[in-house]
Amino acid sequence: MSDRLVLHEFALSGNCYKVRLTATYAGVPIERREYDIMKGETRTPEFLANVSANGRIPVLQAGKRFIPESNAICFYIADGSALIPTDRADRADMLHWMFWEQYHHEPNIATLRFWMRWLGLDRLTDLQRSQMPVKRKLGTEALQLMDEHLSGRQWFVGEALSLAEITLGTLVYRWHAFPIERPPLKNLKAWFERLRERPAFKKHIEIPIT
Amino acid sequence: MSDRLVLHEFALSGNCYKVRLTATYAGVPIERREYDIMKGETRTPEFLANVSANGRIPVLQAGKRFIPESNAICFYIADGSALIPTDRADRADMLHWMFWEQYHHEPNIATLRFWMRWLGLDRLTDLQRSQMPVKRKLGTEALQLMDEHLSGRQWFVGEALSLAEITLGTLVYRWHAFPIERPPLKNLKAWFERLRERPAFKKHIEIPIT
Repeated sequence: MSDRLVLHEFALSGNCYKVRLTATYAGVPIERREYDIMKGETRTPEFLANVSANGRIPVLQAGKRFIPESNAICFYIADGSALIPTDRADRADMLHWMFWEQYHHEPNIATLRFWMRWLGLDRLTDLQRSQMPVKRKLGTEALQLMDEHLSGRQWFVGEALSLAEITLGTLVYRWHAFPIERPPLKNLKAWFERLRERPAFKKHIEIPIT
Repeated sequence: MSDRLVLHEFALSGNCYKVRLTATYAGVPIERREYDIMKGETRTPEFLANVSANGRIPVLQAGKRFIPESNAICFYIADGSALIPTDRADRADMLHWMFWEQYHHEPNIATLRFWMRWLGLDRLTDLQRSQMPVKRKLGTEALQLMDEHLSGRQWFVGEALSLAEITLGTLVYRWHAFPIERPPLKNLKAWFERLRERPAFKKHIEIPIT
């Protein structure tokens, strides 16, 4: 890629962490520009007009283009690399896990964590509070589904690490530090330990994501 | 593609409709197998063991592979066709809209519609009922964002129709018949009229999605 890449991010966000991890894996240098989402810095008129009308991070600036949505950004950075399978069915299966993550995993586990860790229980609205039991239940089911899928497998898709690992691994890393009861998830833990041993993960895992 | 393709679906679902539309556009024949989600036919032990552990439709069976998640299936069917841009940034931008659709659009508009049209207001739980105002608000904001993006543009990505249209158009079609107050969305309506004129959309739009 010849375009200069700038990641507009909030470094502590799991969705931004994914992008940095993909860039490290793919050996692609990116610049970083930080926004404090707790101060509404992604909802300013300037951000909405120039970076993303959706008012969210991450957004990747590639030359004159601005690409939102973490998994689309990861695909962009990894396009043509070994992180995206060349087999047509494997490639679609990888995308399946990436879409699944954003629908079944992130809105439960990451949102719950954001509410508990960042907003704080006493600042939640009644509506948010009322959704917590359902999110816990769905989040746990998502982790169990991953665990079952990994029975007898090393990686989510085919025989190699792909963007599915980067997408799902980021969230599992955070779940490890997550204050909820969890069933034992043997396969998931073994998979995560394999990820942790990889240099790119090791490099980023040191970033204090609390 | 040489593999026989079987779509495991509930025909009235918007996410299944997308897949049929993509197949028509790409000129790929698919067989269809119907499940009644209202009767729990995707939650049987057989479905969970053989089709998808996630217990949801659509799932595409391609030879021996089973691929869940509507947008991953569309990507599989359209892979290598004109529905997926060859430009790297355009391709990622198309995926951005597909991820955005599943995160910001479908859980609001499609879920609300499912609750109102299929479950019925009197069968909703208190939790579902309490989420309705937020889903209406977020759904309306999603439609407004699409409308603004289309200002001065014919298509969502670049200069041609792509999977972004199929993904987003399906939901907009349903929103047209949706019983909520809506702001005027001039660009979105003009875009949708362009879609309606396309033979593939025309063929499928006749299916009575109510």
